[in-house]
Amino acid sequence: MATLRSLYRSDHADRPEFNTNFDVDYVIHYQVPAEDSTKAEAAFVQLIEALSSVGLATEVRRGDDSSVLVFVKVASEYLLEQHAYRYRVQDWLYGVRTSAPSKDLGSCFQEQPVSEAEKLRLVYLLITKPRNEGGAGVTPGSGQWTSVKSIFPLHNHAFNREWIKKLSTNYFIEEDDINQIRDKFGEQIAFYFAFLQTYFSFLIFPAAFGLGAWLVLGQFSWFYAVVNCLWSVVFFEYWKKKEVDLAVQWGVRGVSRIQHPRTQFQFEREAQDPVTGEILKVYSPFKRLQRQLLQLPFAIVCLLVLGSLIISCFSIEIFISEVYNGPFKQYLVFLPTLLLSVFMPALTTILTNLAEKLTHLENYETHDSHQAAFVQKMFVINFIVSYLPIILTAFVYVPFGKVLVPYLDIWHVTAQHFTTDGKVEIQPFEVNPDRLKKQIIYFTVTAQVVNLLLEAVVPLIKRKVFKKVKEVKTAKNGAPQHEDHEGEAAFLQRVRNEAELDKYDVTVDYREMVVQFGYLSLFSVIWPLTACSFLVNNWVEARSDALKIAVGSQRPVPWRSDSIGPWLTSLGFLSWLGSLTSAAIVYLFNKDPYGPNGVPSNVTGWALLLSILFAEHLYLVVQFVVRYVIGSLDSPGLQKERAERFAMRKLHLQETLGEDFADNAVAANLGAGEKITRAALEEEARKASVSGSGTPEQLFWQRQRGAQETIQIGRGLISEAAAANKTKSQ
Amino acid sequence: MATLRSLYRSDHADRPEFNTNFDVDYVIHYQVPAEDSTKAEAAFVQLIEALSSVGLATEVRRGDDSSVLVFVKVASEYLLEQHAYRYRVQDWLYGVRTSAPSKDLGSCFQEQPVSEAEKLRLVYLLITKPRNEGGAGVTPGSGQWTSVKSIFPLHNHAFNREWIKKLSTNYFIEEDDINQIRDKFGEQIAFYFAFLQTYFSFLIFPAAFGLGAWLVLGQFSWFYAVVNCLWSVVFFEYWKKKEVDLAVQWGVRGVSRIQHPRTQFQFEREAQDPVTGEILKVYSPFKRLQRQLLQLPFAIVCLLVLGSLIISCFSIEIFISEVYNGPFKQYLVFLPTLLLSVFMPALTTILTNLAEKLTHLENYETHDSHQAAFVQKMFVINFIVSYLPIILTAFVYVPFGKVLVPYLDIWHVTAQHFTTDGKVEIQPFEVNPDRLKKQIIYFTVTAQVVNLLLEAVVPLIKRKVFKKVKEVKTAKNGAPQHEDHEGEAAFLQRVRNEAELDKYDVTVDYREMVVQFGYLSLFSVIWPLTACSFLVNNWVEARSDALKIAVGSQRPVPWRSDSIGPWLTSLGFLSWLGSLTSAAIVYLFNKDPYGPNGVPSNVTGWALLLSILFAEHLYLVVQFVVRYVIGSLDSPGLQKERAERFAMRKLHLQETLGEDFADNAVAANLGAGEKITRAALEEEARKASVSGSGTPEQLFWQRQRGAQETIQIGRGLISEAAAANKTKSQ
Repeated sequence: MATLRSLYRSDHADRPEFNTNFDVDYVIHYQVPAEDSTKAEAAFVQLIEALSSVGLATEVRRGDDSSVLVFVKVASEYLLEQHAYRYRVQDWLYGVRTSAPSKDLGSCFQEQPVSEAEKLRLVYLLITKPRNEGGAGVTPGSGQWTSVKSIFPLHNHAFNREWIKKLSTNYFIEEDDINQIRDKFGEQIAFYFAFLQTYFSFLIFPAAFGLGAWLVLGQFSWFYAVVNCLWSVVFFEYWKKKEVDLAVQWGVRGVSRIQHPRTQFQFEREAQDPVTGEILKVYSPFKRLQRQLLQLPFAIVCLLVLGSLIISCFSIEIFISEVYNGPFKQYLVFLPTLLLSVFMPALTTILTNLAEKLTHLENYETHDSHQAAFVQKMFVINFIVSYLPIILTAFVYVPFGKVLVPYLDIWHVTAQHFTTDGKVEIQPFEVNPDRLKKQIIYFTVTAQVVNLLLEAVVPLIKRKVFKKVKEVKTAKNGAPQHEDHEGEAAFLQRVRNEAELDKYDVTVDYREMVVQFGYLSLFSVIWPLTACSFLVNNWVEARSDALKIAVGSQRPVPWRSDSIGPWLTSLGFLSWLGSLTSAAIVYLFNKDPYGPNGVPSNVTGWALLLSILFAEHLYLVVQFVVRYVIGSLDSPGLQKERAERFAMRKLHLQETLGEDFADNAVAANLGAGEKITRAALEEEARKASVSGSGTPEQLFWQRQRGAQETIQIGRGLISEAAAANKTKSQ
Repeated sequence: MATLRSLYRSDHADRPEFNTNFDVDYVIHYQVPAEDSTKAEAAFVQLIEALSSVGLATEVRRGDDSSVLVFVKVASEYLLEQHAYRYRVQDWLYGVRTSAPSKDLGSCFQEQPVSEAEKLRLVYLLITKPRNEGGAGVTPGSGQWTSVKSIFPLHNHAFNREWIKKLSTNYFIEEDDINQIRDKFGEQIAFYFAFLQTYFSFLIFPAAFGLGAWLVLGQFSWFYAVVNCLWSVVFFEYWKKKEVDLAVQWGVRGVSRIQHPRTQFQFEREAQDPVTGEILKVYSPFKRLQRQLLQLPFAIVCLLVLGSLIISCFSIEIFISEVYNGPFKQYLVFLPTLLLSVFMPALTTILTNLAEKLTHLENYETHDSHQAAFVQKMFVINFIVSYLPIILTAFVYVPFGKVLVPYLDIWHVTAQHFTTDGKVEIQPFEVNPDRLKKQIIYFTVTAQVVNLLLEAVVPLIKRKVFKKVKEVKTAKNGAPQHEDHEGEAAFLQRVRNEAELDKYDVTVDYREMVVQFGYLSLFSVIWPLTACSFLVNNWVEARSDALKIAVGSQRPVPWRSDSIGPWLTSLGFLSWLGSLTSAAIVYLFNKDPYGPNGVPSNVTGWALLLSILFAEHLYLVVQFVVRYVIGSLDSPGLQKERAERFAMRKLHLQETLGEDFADNAVAANLGAGEKITRAALEEEARKASVSGSGTPEQLFWQRQRGAQETIQIGRGLISEAAAANKTKSQ
């Protein structure tokens, strides 16, 4: 395993296993089942034959004591280039690239060499694509490939080392870094880092402004709320444009439509694509729509299930911390946290499974749309878990606490059952207005830090423990220790370690950032320092995510992508919702936060609703304006796209119609038109004089032969008219 | 003049002037000024020379007694085709067309002949484009062409006759009719009729449903409001898609960007277009943005000026009709109408001028964007004039009438000044809840009918009167009567009449429809029969608009366009606003419309706001869903576009790389890949065995030579692992 330390060790040059991948493109981790080894052998033979039939070279080595490792590389450079070229042409055919790849293979790869990411993606497709589409059809864990545990590329540790070093000594991730990430890990992960960097840069403003607001304006300032909303609109609209721009610059715009078809997709019938003439598998969009409607009951179920858990724990907590005054209070306050940490993961897992089932039911053609639909459903769960507690505090506990606390008698009665004398000491209830701020600080500082630690440390410990267990087991079993070939032993050890690592899932990291953005947009008016905390957190987050990819996970398959996908919708939604919640919070708490009873007073329904209504429409107007302004700016990517499309068309024109014509066509200018014109006119005049008389039309146009006669007669008519005019005016 | 009667006369065949245009493309109406006829003659000479220099044939004839008519046609078919071809190629270069025009001119025009509209557009551009861009540079009324009064094409009366006949005997305007309109009058007008037809078809549903609602549910039904909102969303989203579809089918998508540059555009600097390499005139978008911000004060001014007029008249009316009970009441009730009809047109004219000035200040590059910006400003004026009176009644007069009427004392005091004894009889005020319905009926029935009549009849009368005046004048002056050539006299008379007609402005007709849609969306819950009235009205409207174009106006220059332009935004806005007003109206009036005092009772602010808030968000959710559903349907136009783009790229590929490759590239399939693979593998193996040993990488890949060795060794490893597993599990 490449530990952080090993990556940074100065004697790295002495450890060749981290500096070479032995030209290996992919490693197939082949698990030998405990029984039926004949079957496993047969499947293995099929595997190697399938791989070699599509032009992949293979080597096999021992894995851990119950698996073997198959090393795969593409057999020849020429084959790879053939593949790469065909995929590039396909991209162009489907409009993903705007410029056609150069006709000559050599110059095509000179202009745009095959990057590591492109190579790895192609080889992965070669391994996994169905046989009838020219791949080896090896799909880990399904069908005949149940023994194939995973297929993963090897880390480029030389790059990883440089990358981590550079990131950890720089404040910003530069465009150049993003491009490097793209070359090594593909566009999907590059998009994540580009988003993270944009978000980080944008956070500087609310962090500075929030600090100022915290010092000068205090909590619940409407001015802070307005600026914060404005910022979130600008950020969202800017990213929306930036995203398109990046996709165009990277030549991946629209790639989600054609990339990565799902093997599980069930089709109803086959039909010819009216566009490409291919045979397509079709599934009725209406049927899918019907199934998508199930999202509504799903959201309701989530709200009911998670909501009731949160409300129960919330009310127990209030009862214990603010009403209850009996024995064991100091222990009992941990009860709700305990309940939450037991039931929440369980319920979330159940609901996640449900979401997965629903998404499968919706039966998408491509992985990207499947993933997007799944993320949408997960967002509902995340939303409830992350924001409902604060919403409860802000909009239920503080304003209605006094009214609702008597209903907490249910816990009082419950508590009485547990005491011997049936008596429970209670204290008079007071709404604790500080609770809201404390909760925000918990979610935006404590939880973030805890999360970061969990993310970084837990997998590390998990891996160490597993490794130890394995070692102990192996030692106990006394399984035969085989010697690796000298010179590759260390490398093989490294590969065995990488085989044990988890897969990296970028959606987890996106989710974290989007949920964080939500706190900022929805609730930061409660505690303006929120953005400061996030700024610090995200600097660390970017580095820890990089480490997670470089050290903590298998190298991801470098998929392409043309946006941050479904998270964009979530961002927009949270930004919009922020205008509502901020307005409501400011209205409720701004007046006199620590009023007579520490609760907002003089709250009237219509004024609350009016502030919300007003804020929302202000938001929509601002969004409209910002969108217009950002839309009217030209972006390098879109410009590039237009230029390439134009150049391509002009080239086509030059090739078919000649240089001159193409130049003139730009201005739709008749260039050498005048000559044609004169000739045509003379010809016309000649014809007319020959024919003498003819149809009424010919007669009409023969009254004046040529422009000179028109001029002559016209002058006569004008003098006449002028003379008549004069007579009249006299 | 082609009167309606003359178009329909059975003896049409005997009136050749309506059946031929003598091949004339355009007529230039050249006004001879009362003084300085020498200058006029010189300008005339320049005009004819300019026209003939770009290949236009000319004939001159007498106009009315102070003008001459210059007849223009393109000199040869060949020249026209050259122009048409170059414009088509330009369209393709700029991405307006997706398919490149055929390389061979002959087959290009066989596939897609030059329509009347295309020809007329090209000739118009030839006449009006600046000289350095290859045109004659004749711009009516400006610069050296102050004497050029107008440039207009001649009506195709044979077509017009058929068209009007077909329209007036059919319920629907078919797709075929729209295509014919497009061929004769260009895409801009075709878009109007397509919109009108779609709107008309969509109206059938709310008309039927409205009738049912009126019979069963009565006024102010929330169910009607919901259905009506849903309908307006579906209509709007459908049209948005349909519009794009039509634009693609007609090959005009994106044409507004490149069409019709404004000669008045002021540029700051010249720069090279990064895309096409042309020299472009650039104006800073930020400067324009600053000037666009002036729209806000403009809107406020409009609201203040028009608003105060409407409020004054409104309050006077209420005072006179419902408070005042003195003498002359039967005459005085007309006072507010009188005031409105005097001041409203005056104020509207002033504000329109202001809007024009503002739009000029914003300095747009193209006519289309200029027009769009102007329409936006006009929409503000239209909105206030059309809807404010109803808004006042619904949201001020009825709910707050009791409270506000005492303030009408100002009119009472004013009235006292006009009486001799200073006494004015008044009656006790009662809010008249029927007023709202009456007002709606007025706006949606009476006003529509009046408007239709005004539109159809007034220009007719105006023309008749003007003609009479002219005849009388001419007779009195005894100006010399010249005989036209026999055979063209009737035709010339017809042309002289057409020269006197107004220009047709499609925005006026769009405005009417959009304002009408607004009544339906905003207020039809007050009177569900609204849509019935509109359905009837619009059937007539379509025919009367056709008549206006065919008989009442000069034939319009057939401009292209790719959408209904700025009206789309207005439609969306009105549809959205409808959700708010409908909810408010239903809440205010639904309970007990004729309560104790005939006014809504039990109105609470928060409940009102909550209904609005709820309705609006329901609207937004529904819009989101409808947009998603409509978006997921494929449309023939977009499919055509994709297919053409794909075909074009594939063609390019076939031309450069060969047939086979292009076919395989569609699936990015390596087709003949296997052969290459085997060969490559064998070559690889050969090389390896030759080189013997080498770098660690080479050594690594030489342990197993070929797939067979890998299989062999792999089987060994698997058996070992399986054996070890067995030992372990025992």
